[in-house]
Amino acid sequence: MAAQRVSVLGATGSVGTSTLDLIQRTPDAFEIIALTAQTSVDKLADTAIATRAKLAVIGDPAHYGHLKERLAGTGIEAAAGAEALVAAARVPADCVVAAMMGAAGLKPALAAVGQGRRVGLANKECLVTAGALFMAEVKRCGAELVPVDSEHSAVLQALGSAEPATIERIVLTASGGPFRTWDAARLASVTPAQALKHPNWVMGRKITIDSATMMNKGLELIEAFHLFPVTADQLGVLVHPQSIIHALVEYCDGSVMAQLASPDMRTPIALALSWPGRMQAPTARLDLAKIATLTFEAPDRERFPAIALAEAALVSGGGATAVLNAANEVAVEAFLAGQIGFLDIAGTVSRCLDKLDGDLKCSDTTSVDAILAVDSRARRLARDVIAMNG
Amino acid sequence: MAAQRVSVLGATGSVGTSTLDLIQRTPDAFEIIALTAQTSVDKLADTAIATRAKLAVIGDPAHYGHLKERLAGTGIEAAAGAEALVAAARVPADCVVAAMMGAAGLKPALAAVGQGRRVGLANKECLVTAGALFMAEVKRCGAELVPVDSEHSAVLQALGSAEPATIERIVLTASGGPFRTWDAARLASVTPAQALKHPNWVMGRKITIDSATMMNKGLELIEAFHLFPVTADQLGVLVHPQSIIHALVEYCDGSVMAQLASPDMRTPIALALSWPGRMQAPTARLDLAKIATLTFEAPDRERFPAIALAEAALVSGGGATAVLNAANEVAVEAFLAGQIGFLDIAGTVSRCLDKLDGDLKCSDTTSVDAILAVDSRARRLARDVIAMNG
Repeated sequence: MAAQRVSVLGATGSVGTSTLDLIQRTPDAFEIIALTAQTSVDKLADTAIATRAKLAVIGDPAHYGHLKERLAGTGIEAAAGAEALVAAARVPADCVVAAMMGAAGLKPALAAVGQGRRVGLANKECLVTAGALFMAEVKRCGAELVPVDSEHSAVLQALGSAEPATIERIVLTASGGPFRTWDAARLASVTPAQALKHPNWVMGRKITIDSATMMNKGLELIEAFHLFPVTADQLGVLVHPQSIIHALVEYCDGSVMAQLASPDMRTPIALALSWPGRMQAPTARLDLAKIATLTFEAPDRERFPAIALAEAALVSGGGATAVLNAANEVAVEAFLAGQIGFLDIAGTVSRCLDKLDGDLKCSDTTSVDAILAVDSRARRLARDVIAMNG
Repeated sequence: MAAQRVSVLGATGSVGTSTLDLIQRTPDAFEIIALTAQTSVDKLADTAIATRAKLAVIGDPAHYGHLKERLAGTGIEAAAGAEALVAAARVPADCVVAAMMGAAGLKPALAAVGQGRRVGLANKECLVTAGALFMAEVKRCGAELVPVDSEHSAVLQALGSAEPATIERIVLTASGGPFRTWDAARLASVTPAQALKHPNWVMGRKITIDSATMMNKGLELIEAFHLFPVTADQLGVLVHPQSIIHALVEYCDGSVMAQLASPDMRTPIALALSWPGRMQAPTARLDLAKIATLTFEAPDRERFPAIALAEAALVSGGGATAVLNAANEVAVEAFLAGQIGFLDIAGTVSRCLDKLDGDLKCSDTTSVDAILAVDSRARRLARDVIAMNG
């Protein structure tokens, strides 16, 4: 079998590193085309050399000289800047893993989709802020989109080849975060240090706080809405503190299909690299007899209002989910900087959505630039809201 | 869409009745061809009339006159006897549900397979006593075999379109029965009345006792071996007292796919009637938040030796699994009649397997008649063993 050509956008982050770890275990099966990073130039150069990539692109042009120097004589092409990131995504590959963080990942991910081949999508913004546009492009280009996160990868597997009419509900599980059992008064006193301790996953700071507020689950509901053939009211969240079952799909015959796995991103990454097949991944195998107990409870929508905020933004449509996302990012930063309390994160998002309510319905979300404008506007508004209440 | 032609062999038993219940909820989607029963002639006649079947066959020829009388003027053809049961299975149908009990179901099920269409298989003996022969016939005729029991239906769904090489393990769950936590001394004192109380499922007497000894899980392992592309050592059993997860398939990427459902046979029956699609089934929907806790433990192979006996019979091959099944049936009857103790059920099976050990390896299992001869011989031996130890 010919080696699969893979590009990794965001090659030096957590998902990018895990992707390359998997690939290097069966190097004959893969050929690395392009690797990109935003600022980690040395790690990018090391990885490009180790994987014999054809092209390495650094987003920040200030690092171009250093990258070129590091790659001199290796035969690996070097490039830099936002345009070069998009160009890297367009270099023909069988699978592009789009793992760049934040809104900067949008244009490269769309460029990858434009190839009409497989895209492993780890960037949340593509679907949360630009879902309708992104999915229309996936359809138009005939791309195969494989989500790279535990919950949506689980849904994809639990859906199999099901007819949409047979699906009753899609349920994402949530660990409930470190404050699952805390009452409202205690939640008000949560410190950044407390919020950064996630019970099951080791993740970046932003997503760990999102997990503590349960906003991550709200964002995942929005992604699921765009990825899968269901309406907003067919989506649900189930709190499952052990994070073993990642999602469930309920069918019209009473059957519920679930995907389980130890918490390890290499499982969904492996699926994206081998879909619709599977490849070997060196993850810890699940031992349910040892785990012994799995528990489930309904999410508490009062103590964790982020889920309802996300659902409301989804129903509002237009730029509302982009506002939710941007306001949340600003609020999380403010919380981590000690400027606002834990409960003010959702409070800030809620106030931004309220203030923009009428505007959002007529906001333009038909181009990436229009969506990025909504994003910027929401960020400014969130900063104002925080300054006013601070 | 044209109505699907369905025949139900064993139409008056539990699976048969549930099958017809489902069909009658969307009568336009189905056309009933043949219904058969062994002795329940009035229920057969009622059902045939209610479902406008084309043919009703009673196994026991003594009831032929009564059946003919009941169906006079309805336009439904009546027939009786073992040959007529086989002929009913051969009448062209898109799906034949083979739900006859016991060894008597073997020849009709094989006849159904001979049509080369879909067979919903609820008869355990086809695979436990004649698995190799039965599966060879399924392959030869190009039939589509959909198991009608919770565990194997769950495996089928969790397998989806997986490549066999990506499957690491198939795990069937077991409730553990009513004596899961009893020690050996207490197990020795179990009465038939105690053993007939199953915690999760309302089933026939024989299968309820098999659930208490865990022999049902042993028999299911044998069925799974024949149904799915795995070796004996890739099959496992996991005790899961709530009976919500019915089976799990573990893959090479660390993913585990599971099927969950409330305990209701209509879910696997609906799958057999609509495979590879799904149809609506009026079963209680699973509410994991309400169920709250699922627990798992390894089976105790010392207190419940039936699993190891089944595994050993599977490895022995030849007629060993037919002997296991026949000896178990005789032993369960003896236990229910108060002739032997609860632990003597597995003891009897074990002694029969030991006694026939050398013989079994050269026993002929290449025809149904040869297998039925092994079955008869094992039954006689089991009765002798019981008489000697009684």
